[in-house]
Amino acid sequence: MDTTADITAMRRAIALAARGLGATSPNPVVGCVVLDAAGQSAGEGFHRRAGGPHAEIHALREAGERARGGTAYVTLEPCNHTGRTGPCAQALLDAGIRRVVYAVGDPNPQATGGADTLRAEGVQVEQGLLADEAEAGNTAWLTSVRLGRPYVLWKYAATLDGRAAAADATSRWITSAESRADVHRLRAEADAVVVGSGTARADDPQLGVRGIDGAVQPLRVVVDTGATAVKPGARVLDGSAPTLVAVAEDADAAHLPKDAVLRLPRAADGPGLDVPALLAALHARGVRSVLLEGGPVLAGSFVAAGTVDTVVGYLAPVLLGAGPAALADAGITTLSQALRLAVTETVRIGPDLRVTAVPVPARKGN
Amino acid sequence: MDTTADITAMRRAIALAARGLGATSPNPVVGCVVLDAAGQSAGEGFHRRAGGPHAEIHALREAGERARGGTAYVTLEPCNHTGRTGPCAQALLDAGIRRVVYAVGDPNPQATGGADTLRAEGVQVEQGLLADEAEAGNTAWLTSVRLGRPYVLWKYAATLDGRAAAADATSRWITSAESRADVHRLRAEADAVVVGSGTARADDPQLGVRGIDGAVQPLRVVVDTGATAVKPGARVLDGSAPTLVAVAEDADAAHLPKDAVLRLPRAADGPGLDVPALLAALHARGVRSVLLEGGPVLAGSFVAAGTVDTVVGYLAPVLLGAGPAALADAGITTLSQALRLAVTETVRIGPDLRVTAVPVPARKGN
Repeated sequence: MDTTADITAMRRAIALAARGLGATSPNPVVGCVVLDAAGQSAGEGFHRRAGGPHAEIHALREAGERARGGTAYVTLEPCNHTGRTGPCAQALLDAGIRRVVYAVGDPNPQATGGADTLRAEGVQVEQGLLADEAEAGNTAWLTSVRLGRPYVLWKYAATLDGRAAAADATSRWITSAESRADVHRLRAEADAVVVGSGTARADDPQLGVRGIDGAVQPLRVVVDTGATAVKPGARVLDGSAPTLVAVAEDADAAHLPKDAVLRLPRAADGPGLDVPALLAALHARGVRSVLLEGGPVLAGSFVAAGTVDTVVGYLAPVLLGAGPAALADAGITTLSQALRLAVTETVRIGPDLRVTAVPVPARKGN
Repeated sequence: MDTTADITAMRRAIALAARGLGATSPNPVVGCVVLDAAGQSAGEGFHRRAGGPHAEIHALREAGERARGGTAYVTLEPCNHTGRTGPCAQALLDAGIRRVVYAVGDPNPQATGGADTLRAEGVQVEQGLLADEAEAGNTAWLTSVRLGRPYVLWKYAATLDGRAAAADATSRWITSAESRADVHRLRAEADAVVVGSGTARADDPQLGVRGIDGAVQPLRVVVDTGATAVKPGARVLDGSAPTLVAVAEDADAAHLPKDAVLRLPRAADGPGLDVPALLAALHARGVRSVLLEGGPVLAGSFVAAGTVDTVVGYLAPVLLGAGPAALADAGITTLSQALRLAVTETVRIGPDLRVTAVPVPARKGN
C-alpha cells in the first residue's frame, strides 16, 4: 500500500524529471528520490542529458551509504542494459536498496527488464504509483517510442476570431509578452523547433530559446521546399544552435551551408515536403519532440498527415475580422471530417488564454 | 457596517433579480429581501415583468406585518415615481421598514430620489453593499441607460482555428449540445435576438428559446437589407414570438407581413443597414438587450460600429483549416486598429470552451 511518504517522494521525482525536458533526447526524462531505511530523504537526481548518468545514479551518489536498506522512487522502470552508462538495476543492488517503486514501465525493448533483475535479487519492487502523472511528464518520449516518430506539439497564436495576423500581415504582437515567454519554455522543452517558408520569409525568426537559464537550444528546422526563403545571413543561420533547412530533392540549395541542407521528397499530394519523411529524418537524428510553430500552411500539412499530437493555442482577446487564419488547408472540406480534439487544459497567460488539446479517436459519421 | 447577515440577504436579492432577466425590459431586473425586526427572513421578491409589481412590493406583500421595524435589501435604489405602479419608497414607508440597504443607485432621472424620500422620513438608508455584483447582474440595463441604445452581446460559435463552418458550409454542429443549450439561456435573458441575411438564408433559424421553463420569448430580428433572405413560410415568421425583418428603405418587402417590416437607412459605408439606426429603432420599442447571433458579416458591421459590449465565444475543440471565419470585415486592416478585449470569464461547457470578453478602452499606437 502506498503511504503518504511514498506519494510525496514520487511526486518529487516527477518534478525532478521535468527539469530534464528538452535536454535528454533520445532518452526519456527520469527523476529519482532515495529515502534511507528510516524514511528520510537521502538523495535525489534526474537525468540531465543523453550520455550522462541516469537519475538513479545521481540520487545514489548523493545518498552514499544511507542508501543501504532504503527505498528508491523512480519515474521510469530502472534500466537493465549497458548503453553509454551501466545498468541502473545493478547500481541499485550494489547500493543495497531494499525497495524500488517506479511509476511507468520502460517500453523500450532494449532497456526493459530492470524490475525482473531487481526482484530476482530479493528487492521489493512495485510499479504504478502516480503512473498517470509520470506518463504526462514523459508524453513526448513515450509518444515517440509508441509511434516511431517524434512527438509533435503544434503551437499557434491567434485572435479570438482565429486570425494569425491582420489583413496587412502585421502580427507583432498579437499575443502578450507573457505568452511569448511561455513559448520560449516550450522551445526549451523541445528537441527541435520547426517553421515553414512563409514564416521564415515574413519574420526571419532566430528560433532560439531566450530568457531561460541553462536551456539547451533546440535544433532549428525550416521547411523551405523550394530553397527560396532562407537567405544567406538569415538569423536562423547565426550558428547559435544547429539548423536544418529541409528542401526538396530537386531544389537549388547552393546558397545554403552544406551541412544545414536536408533533402527530402516532396509531398505526394499538396504543397511542400512529405511530412512523415521529415519526421523520420528528425527521428534518425535523435529528435524525440518537435515544436511546430507554423505557419498556417505547414501546420495544415501536419494536420493532414495526422502527425499533430498536441495543440497549444495562445488566444489573444483581440478581434480583427480579417487576415490569415492560424491553420490553412488540412484537406478537410466538410464538418464530419474535422479533426476533433479534447481540451486538456486552459490557463490564463497574462491577458491571453492558453488552450491545450489533444486529438480524440475519430467517430463514425456525425 | 455590513454584517454577514447583510451580505447574505443582499446576495440572495441579487440571485432573485437574475430570475427576471429577459422579461422586465424596459425596466431593470431587481431583487428584494425583507428581514423582520429580529433579523429573520420575512419576504422576498423580484421584478418579473414590466407593468407588474416591483421587487419591493412582492417582498413586502410576503412579509406582511413582519416588515414593521425590519430591513429591506434591494439590488437597485427604490423608485420614487409613479409609473405603471406606485413608488416603492412610499410602499416601504407604509410597511414600517426601518432600514433600507440598496446596492446600486438608480441612474434613471425619472425614477431616482427614492433614497432621499426614505431618509426624509427617518429611515436608515445605506448604499453600495455588493454593488459590483449587483451591477454585473444588471449590466444590460445599466449599459442601455448609459449609452441610450440596447446593450449588445455578440455570441459566436467557432472551431479552435476560428472557423464558423467547414469549407462546404456545413456547420451543424460545430459546438456541443451543452453549448447550444447555453445559447438558449442567453436568448432567454435577451430582449431581442438578431441575425443577418446569410444566417437566415443558410439555416432558416426559428430563433426561439427552447428548453427553459417559463422563458419569455425574445423579439426576433433578421437584418435582411435587400429583403431577399426571409421567404414567406420562414420559421422565423411562425408566430410563436414577435418578429421584425429589418430591410432597406428602398427594398421590395411586399412578400413579408406588413407589421414585421422595419425600414431603415442603409449603412453610409459598407454593406447592410445602418447599425446605430437599427439599435435606435429597437431601443424605441423597449429593447434594452440584444443577443447578436451573427453571422460573420453582420457581426463585422456591429464591431465596426463600436456597438459590441460583450463577446461570448463558444470554442469547439475542433480543427478545420478551411471555411468561413466567425467574424468578417470589421474595417480593421492592421494590428494596431484591432479591437482589444479583456477576458472576464472562461468556462468549460461540455467539451467546449466558453470565453467571455469585453472591449477595453483603446490604447494609443501599439
